[in-house]
Parts: sequence; structure tokens; C-alpha cells
Amino acid sequence: MNSDNTLKPFFAPVGIAVIGARSTPGFGYMLPSNLKENGWGDRTYLVNPKGGRLHGMPVYKTLTEIPGKVDLAVVIVPAPAVPGVLTDIGEAGIRQVILMSAGFAETGPEGAALQDESSAIANQYGLKIIGPNCVGVVNTKNRFATTELMPEAFTPGTLAVLAQSGVFGHNLLERFNEYGIAVSKAVTLGNRVVVNEIDALNFFHQDPETRTIVMYIEGSADGRRLRKTLTKISQDKPVIVLKSGRTEQGKTATASHTGSLSGEDELYEGMFAQTGTVRAKTLDDLTVLARVFDTQPPPRGNHLGIITGSGSMGALATDSAIDHGLVIPELSERIINNVKNGAPGWINVKNPLDVGPSGQFPAAFQAMMEDRDIHMILAVIAIPYAAYQRMEMSTTVDEFFFGSKKPIKDQLWPKPFVISVVSHEKLANLFKQSCEPRVPVFASPETATRALAALWRYRRWLNGNH
Amino acid sequence: MNSDNTLKPFFAPVGIAVIGARSTPGFGYMLPSNLKENGWGDRTYLVNPKGGRLHGMPVYKTLTEIPGKVDLAVVIVPAPAVPGVLTDIGEAGIRQVILMSAGFAETGPEGAALQDESSAIANQYGLKIIGPNCVGVVNTKNRFATTELMPEAFTPGTLAVLAQSGVFGHNLLERFNEYGIAVSKAVTLGNRVVVNEIDALNFFHQDPETRTIVMYIEGSADGRRLRKTLTKISQDKPVIVLKSGRTEQGKTATASHTGSLSGEDELYEGMFAQTGTVRAKTLDDLTVLARVFDTQPPPRGNHLGIITGSGSMGALATDSAIDHGLVIPELSERIINNVKNGAPGWINVKNPLDVGPSGQFPAAFQAMMEDRDIHMILAVIAIPYAAYQRMEMSTTVDEFFFGSKKPIKDQLWPKPFVISVVSHEKLANLFKQSCEPRVPVFASPETATRALAALWRYRRWLNGNH
Repeated sequence: MNSDNTLKPFFAPVGIAVIGARSTPGFGYMLPSNLKENGWGDRTYLVNPKGGRLHGMPVYKTLTEIPGKVDLAVVIVPAPAVPGVLTDIGEAGIRQVILMSAGFAETGPEGAALQDESSAIANQYGLKIIGPNCVGVVNTKNRFATTELMPEAFTPGTLAVLAQSGVFGHNLLERFNEYGIAVSKAVTLGNRVVVNEIDALNFFHQDPETRTIVMYIEGSADGRRLRKTLTKISQDKPVIVLKSGRTEQGKTATASHTGSLSGEDELYEGMFAQTGTVRAKTLDDLTVLARVFDTQPPPRGNHLGIITGSGSMGALATDSAIDHGLVIPELSERIINNVKNGAPGWINVKNPLDVGPSGQFPAAFQAMMEDRDIHMILAVIAIPYAAYQRMEMSTTVDEFFFGSKKPIKDQLWPKPFVISVVSHEKLANLFKQSCEPRVPVFASPETATRALAALWRYRRWLNGNH
Repeated sequence: MNSDNTLKPFFAPVGIAVIGARSTPGFGYMLPSNLKENGWGDRTYLVNPKGGRLHGMPVYKTLTEIPGKVDLAVVIVPAPAVPGVLTDIGEAGIRQVILMSAGFAETGPEGAALQDESSAIANQYGLKIIGPNCVGVVNTKNRFATTELMPEAFTPGTLAVLAQSGVFGHNLLERFNEYGIAVSKAVTLGNRVVVNEIDALNFFHQDPETRTIVMYIEGSADGRRLRKTLTKISQDKPVIVLKSGRTEQGKTATASHTGSLSGEDELYEGMFAQTGTVRAKTLDDLTVLARVFDTQPPPRGNHLGIITGSGSMGALATDSAIDHGLVIPELSERIINNVKNGAPGWINVKNPLDVGPSGQFPAAFQAMMEDRDIHMILAVIAIPYAAYQRMEMSTTVDEFFFGSKKPIKDQLWPKPFVISVVSHEKLANLFKQSCEPRVPVFASPETATRALAALWRYRRWLNGNH
């Protein structure tokens, strides 16, 4: 596929044929019900040779019986039946296919032969196929989804998710939701018989609802085109990637999963670095990076200001920040004077800034937020929950720590700003309610500095490429 | 201090003098109330030159007025008053002191002079001092604590916590509680004018309630003795350590915090490796390692069996396991036959084992648990919460995934076994309720393999040293 917009009908179809709708448990039973629930019932046509009714909708025996216009077919039939169904789809003039069925290259030679046959039919009719062995697409804005989501996951957002594995993509959608991160669109590609990660990346690049792209791949079908595509997209939108198959045995595991052979990891590592692609090391890392990239403005530089109530947490944050290439600059006269003003004599105003129980957290935060030489801020909250509870404060955490009368999440901060709460999750939850998603709340200072450093590295790449 | 038992009176005093009890907000006000609440009121004597009453207890003007026996003094007076108070304590024949006051070497030359003076008085009277600049001790079994804890944190357990920083130790206690990990004893050492980490380690080594030791240090006063001590203790109990001051700027941050100069990190790294000490890389890592070491039996080898419902999660777990030195062995005939028995034809029984929606999770788990060539098990739960909810299962997660009628946490597993739930936290919480603390539930497969690998490395060290 070459035109950037060719994936549009997958995310906003005029009419949908569900081939393999059935009254027994499974996707074929659930999908029609989900589509109806999400407002797509009037444009959804169920197909099964048995006919009858399902979820109050008529079941057509063949594609040709469908009375309305259809531009997307969702196929949920056993693998051996797929070639025949694809031929019917081609004959009916439908061009977009989401092929959810499993049992292709991921299962062995027999499945691989079926996949080749499907590919040939796709070529013959010019079919655009997503899959096989996938769960299709999600579009939060129009609530079109070929997979079952928690209702909360339909909140429209700006993060696009691209995953080779269906289960993986599905789980990511649920995980982001935990942090208040909302998704624009998602696609799971499966065995990529036609549509591949490059097509999906190009589509998300052009998608006006998408600001940040997150991708899970096990390997790419075309390294050269992937490199070109990533270089182009990274100029405009950050692409965060998690790639499995780093080790020989990891490769073997993926090879039998979606039928792709993972490439050499060193080549990928170099490609990601050169193309400004943000590489996540682990699943946790992927969610951390997505949360920061999707919410924070680009940093002007790599000078980090750290405010905390605990010297040891300041030291841990400093170690980690330096490890990741950030700078902990000395504080300006202005910040020092602002913090010392009204503070107890023992306070030692430097970076990292341990304000202890001085009550100077808000003054320090505001002075750092206004200072031109501090490019990003990390606040490490270290007050034990037991102590916090005892204080029976009339103020919110926003006001107590940051001097802010409005919730932190309702404000536009001019520089990257993240929080780490190292005490009990009950205190962390108070911060999450006030701050997320606008300002991410992490459990450890090291996670926070790692994410800020990635933000800076991307910015530095941009500076060198514009 | 040379006798291993010299710290006993700190954790189980006969009588306690609280010097600096007062009616204005702060530790001097809270501590007497906390001690009383925890059942120590009848052995607690408050001291303040002003006299009067506090929390319904008499306040003595001097130590000599106290009617009962006292073997522990807790000091919460401003730093300049400390030398005088220590002299009074020495004269009164009390030998144990928890010096909570701050304002010593951590603040600059003036404070350092006060600290030297205090040290001289300690020498003169043979005082054992914990502190200054600390929050003292916690003993969950007898509910003796010189710091304010969440009530849940008093559950008696087997993990001992040793932290140079008071805030750090306090926060750790709260964090462990989140995972159902219960603590035996905790001590925060502050500036270590007399009692240091070596004394505390030796005490925990001998402590029958303690099975695992967790330590946060910024540097050691005596590297040679620390090495000897760690070598000795690691033979009997795992010691997990997080050390800050890895970078020059991190060192500077800690130097001004508890007045210690951090040693060279490379020396520590070598010492930890040679002494079987388990080094945590980050604060998150410290809690992860503590959860696994405090709950899992030692592994017989490094062969990991992975069961999952998602091929991509199996691949991520494999990459990470191999990176950390584990082996993903081929499965025995017996496991293969047990899993294939009654499974759909598409199932590909290998390691990592992706059971997909075959319903063979319990069979695979039980076969691996019984197999002698699998030394540890990781179960990666990848079913999306939306799908799980829809199933409206009559079984619990224990039964559905592991074929277990009893909660996972109520059973003794013969080999290390951990779980990773990659879907929404609502599903993770169901697993936590059924499995923790006995079987830790992590958010990502990489975290789980990292922890299992550390368990194996410690075991290998033990094998080489016994």
C-alpha cells in the first residue's frame, strides 16, 4: 500500500460484514453484540450459511444477500475456510478485510500454505487484509472496535497503539487506561499477510487525532522501509517501540507465534537510535515512556531540578538522572533566595533540593518552574502516609506541595514535570487523582528520571534533524 | 560493639525515657502518644524541664525523678542541647540511646562539631547511640516503635529493614505492606555516631524472627568489616542492598544528607558480588527482590518454565530470562503428553508454553510443578480484563488458571513460582488477593524473570560457598 489514507475504512467503515457470526461462545458470538452496543448495529451485517437471527439481528446466508453497502469484512471462520471466504469477499467488491482467524503461519507448514493461498487471493482482488491472527482495530472517537474493551477504554485520546500481537495490543489498552492515558486508535496486525507495521505507522502519522505512537513488534518485514518511515515520522510525532526477540530463544518464541522471523537485534538497536525512535526496554518501560511522551511538552534542555522531602531519595534520583545523561545544575541566586525566604535556618538550598519539613515545597516548586535554567522538574514525595494522615490537612495535595489552588492536572505546565510518590499507594492515589494524566505519578524516582531522560534524548535528536 | 546481642534493649526495652516530650506539634508530641497506643504507656517516662502532664501521663523534670527502671532513652531535643542531655543519660546509668534530633554532621561544620562532642560523651559513658538524625526502631512482634506507622505495618513478619535514612526506612515499611510483606524489625541509623550498619546486620543475623534482610546505605564506615559481615550473614540469610551515591553528584547529595562520604561504587559492586549480597538497582528493584526472597524457596537450578496465554508475552519473558542468565529448557515428554492430553490440535507444547484459549493452563502448571527439570515457574496472565469479566466464571482465578481448589497463598510450593498479570490492575488485584504474599504478582514478565534470576544467583553463590 502506498497511499497514506488507505487504512481509513478500517477505522470508520460505511458498512461491516461479520463473516462467521455464530450463536456459540467465541468472537463470532461476541463481536456482533459489541458492535451493536457501541452504536454500529445499523451498519453491521452478520453472515453465516445457517442464516437465522443473532442478538436480534438478521443473519445473511451469503454476502450477496446483504441489503446495504459494505466496505469492511471481518472474518472469524476456521482457517481452512478462509480462502473460500476471501474469494467471496473479492467477488463482492469489498476491499478491506480484518482476518481474525488463527491457524496460519504461526502453527506450522500447513498453516503457512493456507497463508500463502490467502495472500495470492488478496493479490488477485486487491484486498487490504489486516491479520490473520489478530483482533483488528479500535477507534475511540467513533467507538468502532472489533475487539471487546472495558467501557473506560473508549475515552478518546491522542495515543495510537500498534501491536503485532492481538493479546498484547488489547492488554496495552487496558493498562494505559489505569493511568488515565487515552487512546486515539489501535491496530493489531497479526501475521501481516498484507497490511504491515509500515502501513499502520504511515496512517497514524497522518491521523490528526494521534500525537504519540506506541508500537510492539517482533520483527519487521522490510527493514529499509521501516527505517525510512521512522525517520520521517519521528520528525513530527514520537514513536515508542518495544521489540521482542532480542535473544535467540526469544526469537524462536516469536517465530512460532505470529510466523515472523525476528531480525538481528543489533541492527534494530542502531536503526532506532538513528531514526529518533524511542526504544522501550520492557513492558513496564513502554507504559512509562508512553505516559510521559503523551503528556509532556518537549524540554528545552537536559537540566533537571529535583525537589524532595528526603535526602536519600534526592540521592537516588540524582544517581539515576546522571546515569541517563541528565544534568543536575546548581540553582540560580533567584531560586535560592526565593526558597530561603521564610525558611528555617537549617535548610540547605541546592539541587537536589531536600526541603525536609520546612514547608518550602511550594516555594521551591514555583521558583524552579519559573527559572530558565531548569528545563524539567521531578518532585519526589517522601512523606510517609501515616504522617500525612495525622496532619489532617485542610488543603489538597496540590496546594500543600505545589501551592496550587487548582488541580495539577487542570493546568498547562511550560516544562516537563513528573512526580514520584515513594510512600504507600494510598498517598500515591491521592496524587494520581489530582495530577494524572497531565502530570504522571511514578512509584520510584529512578523510573521518573529514566522517562525524563528519554524525552530529552528525543528532543536532542529532533534538534539535530531539523 | 562486639557482642551480637547488644542491640536487644533497643527493640525490647524494660523502660523508656522520652527526653524532649512536649505539647507542641512534632515528634516530641506524637511519640509518647504512639508508645501509649501500642501498649508501652506503663513503661514510658516523659521528660521535660517544664514538667506537667502530656497525653494523661506525668512529665518528669529530670531523668533522676523517674520512679521506674529505664534502659533506653529516646532523645528529641534541639541539637545544641544534645551534649548536655547525653551527659545526664550517662550519669543516670542508661546505656541505650535513640538520638532522633537532626542538626549534626548533615548540616555543616557547626553540626559536625556537635556530633564529635556527642561521640566523645558516648565514649566516656559507654553509650550505645542509634542516630542522630534518625527515626529509631520498629519491632512488630511486641509493637515497640519509635516512629509512627500505619496500623497494618505492625503485622509480624520475617523481613528486617535497615536504612541509613529515617524517611527511607519509614517509606519502605509502608511499601512492603502494600504487597502483604510483613516486617520483623526495622532500624534507621542516621549519622551513625556509635551504632552502624555492621552492628545492625549482626543483630538481624542472630534475630530468630528475621529470615531476609533489606538494607539501604549511602556508604559504609568500615568496608573491611562490612565485607566480613556480609560474607558471614549471606551463608544463612539473604541480604538485599540498595546503595545510593553511585555517581559523583549522587555522592555529594548523600554527603550533605547523613554526613557520610560515599565510597567508590566499583568497590561496593565487587564486594556485593563476592559476598553473595543481592544488589538492588533501584527502589522498585529493592521491593521486587525483597518480595521474592522473603517468600520463595531456593531454586535447585536455573531452568525456568514459562506458561502464558500470549505468545508475545512468552517472547518478552524469554528475552529477559536469557539476559539475566536463566535457561529455558525444552519440555520433558511427560509434560508434553500431560498438556496435549485433551488439548485442541493447534496447541504447540514447548517452552515458553503459550496455551492460548485451550483451557490447558492448569494441566501445564501442574505438570511443570511436578517436573524435576523445571526449577522455577513463571505464569504470565494475559487475558484482557474485559474478556475475563464476560466469562462470568464460577471458579476462582486459583482454580481457573492453576487447577487449585485452595487459594494459592495457602499452599507450600516446592519451587519458586511467581506470576505476572499484564492486563488491567483489576485482574491483577484478583490474583494478588488469591496469591500474595506467598506467590508475588508482578505487572510485567521482565520484572518477574529479573527477580527469579537474582534468586538463582544467590543460590549459586551459596553452592560455591558451602
